[in-house]
Amino acid sequence: MSYPWEDWDHITKIDPDKDLVDGETFEDVCETGTDALEIGGTLDITEEKMERVVEATAKYDVPIYQEPSNPAVVIDDDALDGYLIPTVFNSSDSFWITGAHKEWVRIEDGLDWDRTHTEAYIVLNPDSSVAEYTEADTDQSADDVASFARVAEKMFGQDIVYIEYSGTYGDPEKVCAAHDALDDATLFYGGGIHDYESAHEMGTCADVVVVGDLLHDKGVDAVRETVEGAKDASAERIDAQ
Amino acid sequence: MSYPWEDWDHITKIDPDKDLVDGETFEDVCETGTDALEIGGTLDITEEKMERVVEATAKYDVPIYQEPSNPAVVIDDDALDGYLIPTVFNSSDSFWITGAHKEWVRIEDGLDWDRTHTEAYIVLNPDSSVAEYTEADTDQSADDVASFARVAEKMFGQDIVYIEYSGTYGDPEKVCAAHDALDDATLFYGGGIHDYESAHEMGTCADVVVVGDLLHDKGVDAVRETVEGAKDASAERIDAQ
Repeated sequence: MSYPWEDWDHITKIDPDKDLVDGETFEDVCETGTDALEIGGTLDITEEKMERVVEATAKYDVPIYQEPSNPAVVIDDDALDGYLIPTVFNSSDSFWITGAHKEWVRIEDGLDWDRTHTEAYIVLNPDSSVAEYTEADTDQSADDVASFARVAEKMFGQDIVYIEYSGTYGDPEKVCAAHDALDDATLFYGGGIHDYESAHEMGTCADVVVVGDLLHDKGVDAVRETVEGAKDASAERIDAQ
Repeated sequence: MSYPWEDWDHITKIDPDKDLVDGETFEDVCETGTDALEIGGTLDITEEKMERVVEATAKYDVPIYQEPSNPAVVIDDDALDGYLIPTVFNSSDSFWITGAHKEWVRIEDGLDWDRTHTEAYIVLNPDSSVAEYTEADTDQSADDVASFARVAEKMFGQDIVYIEYSGTYGDPEKVCAAHDALDDATLFYGGGIHDYESAHEMGTCADVVVVGDLLHDKGVDAVRETVEGAKDASAERIDAQ
């Protein structure tokens, strides 16, 4: 089975609770060259806010995925290419691995499984709110991270492994270790990507580089730089093979 | 991909720490008609004890799987058909879902993934030592159990879902709910199976009925009865389709 993200180098996350930079539009976002939009983020998101972003982005030629932070905000919209459901492999609280998912699937009637996929997060910045919220055990060596990645792919059938440093730039050694541990799964990296150089460095290890705050804080020109960094790194990885 | 357990109706678990009933041999066990042996169980198991059972059973025509309770007892023996690694989907402690697995894979060099499979346990007897040990949240309705089963298959790629009532006979309604929730995964049931009737009833819902203590406590005649109950139930299920 092949998945669209196997061809991606760059994702832009849109937080429906935050504005774009003054004067910028969703058309500008879609023209940065980013390969996909992931809509989701903070805990204050409502269905309404979600819908607004989907409507504004649906007419452009960039795939749109929802990444729900909780079941209540999942929207049923044909404009969505699918759902990317986080599961936090290094959470101390099993609620964030399997528990929330069980609750969600129990209350959902007729989930569209063909469009529903999981992301196996490994959360590594101890100071991030996601680490705190999910009680992630962030004290992981490169070997630990590699092992989590392998377990996610081999034992839990995960097609996406996601190294998340949310709020800070991560340790490329750990990201590379995760990449080396994977056979077919796609490695996402997020956290502290803010320019060509940082996107290029992480893109050397990760298959897909994710930016989020950058869009809302600095705008589309900064995002475009990171797209270029990620795409150049990807081309170099392919050349090196 | 097809797996051997898709054709099984009955498994006999052997605890290497316990004796067979006086006068009975592993040849007798293999001649009960059981479809597979799963070796593992208590916490006092050593590699040596494991090896002894594998040696004694390898020459018969019944597949042998090890179900390690911890990484230290995993043995590397060509006579084994494979490894069935438990993961407890309703544990409160993430160690029993992904944590132990990460530790194991980190210290293992070159795991044989083709022979290594997981079992997604849902542990439901609150008085069992496995429930206590893994801090399982056993307070699960039939809907909850069905939802866990579906999450295991659809979100975590599990090929085996295992309803475990270890020490007591379970609620057939919950077992049937789990079975109805699965598309392709195989449903194992274990707990309190002790005669033709109990094996037949649970075999009506579960794909595979597992006995353990029965072998060590009552012996091969009792096991053979449960094989017959499970196989009759399986034939009836197929007829009913």
